[in-house]
Amino acid sequence: MSTVRAVPACEDELPITPDFDVWPVTHTIVDACVDGRHVRVSWDDGRESRFHFRWLRDACPCSECLNPDSREQILDVSALDATIAPTTTGVDAAGSLAVVWADDRHRSRFHPGWLRAHDYSNPAMEAGAAATVMTWGCEFVERIPTFDAQTVMHDDEALHAWLTALRQLGLTRVRDVPSHEHAVLGVAARIGVVRESVFGRTFQVRAEPKPISNAYTSAGLLPHTDLPTREVQPGIQMLHCLVNDAAGGESVMVDGFRLAEVMRREHPAAFDVLTRVPIEFNSRGRDSEYRWRAPMIALGADGQVVELRPGALVRAPVSAPFEEMEAVYDGIQTFFRLANDDTLRAVFPIHQGDLLAFDNRRILHARTAYDAASGVRHLEGCYIDRDELSSRIRVLERRKR
Amino acid sequence: MSTVRAVPACEDELPITPDFDVWPVTHTIVDACVDGRHVRVSWDDGRESRFHFRWLRDACPCSECLNPDSREQILDVSALDATIAPTTTGVDAAGSLAVVWADDRHRSRFHPGWLRAHDYSNPAMEAGAAATVMTWGCEFVERIPTFDAQTVMHDDEALHAWLTALRQLGLTRVRDVPSHEHAVLGVAARIGVVRESVFGRTFQVRAEPKPISNAYTSAGLLPHTDLPTREVQPGIQMLHCLVNDAAGGESVMVDGFRLAEVMRREHPAAFDVLTRVPIEFNSRGRDSEYRWRAPMIALGADGQVVELRPGALVRAPVSAPFEEMEAVYDGIQTFFRLANDDTLRAVFPIHQGDLLAFDNRRILHARTAYDAASGVRHLEGCYIDRDELSSRIRVLERRKR
Repeated sequence: MSTVRAVPACEDELPITPDFDVWPVTHTIVDACVDGRHVRVSWDDGRESRFHFRWLRDACPCSECLNPDSREQILDVSALDATIAPTTTGVDAAGSLAVVWADDRHRSRFHPGWLRAHDYSNPAMEAGAAATVMTWGCEFVERIPTFDAQTVMHDDEALHAWLTALRQLGLTRVRDVPSHEHAVLGVAARIGVVRESVFGRTFQVRAEPKPISNAYTSAGLLPHTDLPTREVQPGIQMLHCLVNDAAGGESVMVDGFRLAEVMRREHPAAFDVLTRVPIEFNSRGRDSEYRWRAPMIALGADGQVVELRPGALVRAPVSAPFEEMEAVYDGIQTFFRLANDDTLRAVFPIHQGDLLAFDNRRILHARTAYDAASGVRHLEGCYIDRDELSSRIRVLERRKR
Repeated sequence: MSTVRAVPACEDELPITPDFDVWPVTHTIVDACVDGRHVRVSWDDGRESRFHFRWLRDACPCSECLNPDSREQILDVSALDATIAPTTTGVDAAGSLAVVWADDRHRSRFHPGWLRAHDYSNPAMEAGAAATVMTWGCEFVERIPTFDAQTVMHDDEALHAWLTALRQLGLTRVRDVPSHEHAVLGVAARIGVVRESVFGRTFQVRAEPKPISNAYTSAGLLPHTDLPTREVQPGIQMLHCLVNDAAGGESVMVDGFRLAEVMRREHPAAFDVLTRVPIEFNSRGRDSEYRWRAPMIALGADGQVVELRPGALVRAPVSAPFEEMEAVYDGIQTFFRLANDDTLRAVFPIHQGDLLAFDNRRILHARTAYDAASGVRHLEGCYIDRDELSSRIRVLERRKR
């Protein structure tokens, strides 16, 4: 990318609604003209971009078409004439594309940095690199990205480093979080809105006499994701250790993306059946009954694994077609044998002040049994959806004015 | 379905973990035996059911395999031998299927009502009717299902009637909700957990000097769903009118399922392009930036319309392939022209105490402009996901013991 040049001061009487983002002007517009049913824009590097008339009119950023405070559209797109066309196109004194529309003389201006970034008529040559995902096995225990709570709470660069590590690796740790209840909410607020569940805004993981989840016992837990009985499992889970004086109870984390890679390579039939056959998950409480039905391994449009839904604790009786039942059980058993495989499990103690933040749709978490008689163990957790993580990273990555 | 008979008193020493649901015994087991790799169960009406060994072992409801308090599974399915088989099968004194497993002499018992309900080896002859959906047009304004707040708050039958109407028709009204802030949360609590957003746990709809949404002005609003910039739009939206002394500001509701039906029939090319081409939605605030990309019309596995994502206010610049852009705009314009069509719009005033509850993934809502100088208008809203609605209906429909 060439050097970012400052946008020339606007000398035109038409203000462009200010944006919360800035659009670096890497190239200037040298010409703009009507070319059939498009506006053709010529850039100083020889590139030509073409924009459909309706697309341009729809994108008009003036304050009649876009509320400058809310950044929400006012223009009713249905009211545009399909044959709408400019009467004048050109480059204004500020370097913006200026268009006057024939039907109502409405005037639109498009900032050159914005327009270049939204050029859909050329391949996206300047697109940023997509977020990369790196998978891991048991060795990850030695290099779990670990951050200091005070730094993450007050330094946006540290926050950005934490959240991008979380997005890439799926598991991170924050140390020295204050040991008081709801401290986890303070850390969560650095990302965004908490997702409440039937277990509360936060949930308390400790042994209870009448547990409403197996998590609330001292027993070992099978590798699982939380809330597979919901349409969308919570994106991020945070578990904050308030106190842990009990013997046992090590944290076990399995990268579901790595597990799925191994399964696809070494057990293709088992992998295939789990991507194809929906499994029902059902969690039944005295006052709630959640159900969802989905394959245990979800694939994206280009065949990559995008989500795991193992549901070890709340799988309903399998209702696959009779003829497929043996294959489904082969798939389920292969999946959980891999989840118990030492080469895939990162096993480590959780100490007072530790907060584990992980992608609950990718990482399977478990724990070994602990001895409730040997001491107190209390974790507090909460959920945040992926939307919030993405939003926070975008805001942190906004170019500074 | 034949008459429900009482389950015979259990005379066996093995307790079956109690369930939060009951399973009426419509038929009794007359015989059970091993048949190849299955247990064959014969019923008093001549039906035969077959169950795979691993399926039965996995479903064992004893307290070693299933935590009786949490109803979550303890058994590690990966540890089962794929060749597991019974040594004994039979019907116990309580009428349950009793199985003793060969490898570890573990004993499992399956209640006949539960077993019959989970018979996957026969067509589901006793399946309940699926929830039906009924679509509507402008005439619906005369028959919006309307409930009384006090009744809905205290009577579970009225609650059930309200929630099933909401599921079927997508739009309902509750009247005489107390006019104080957060009263909407009390009504929401009758369903389940509230979904918080960047606008808060509840959001306040009134004209503001620096609005962060067009909703927070006195302008008319285009028909839209809320939060199309999130992976999953909120399932249920509630809007409670605390005060409305302003002139104008009528509520406009459009059944998106009806709109899509009309579009599919009368504008098949426009319908097709909107089900196929992903549109980006983007809401940009000072401290948040949400984005999601999805077709405006989502189809289910069998081609039925399951969700609308019009995003009238927060559609990002369309980034469809250059060659498809005219067709995409034809689709978008056709969609919003229908959303403005008087035959599809239910238009009605909202009065103090009214609470509108609607399916935000199906119903497009809008309002006409109002005159903020003529009086105060203040609505308070909140969101609840579909998971919560389904859970509440299931709990209300549990058979009584």
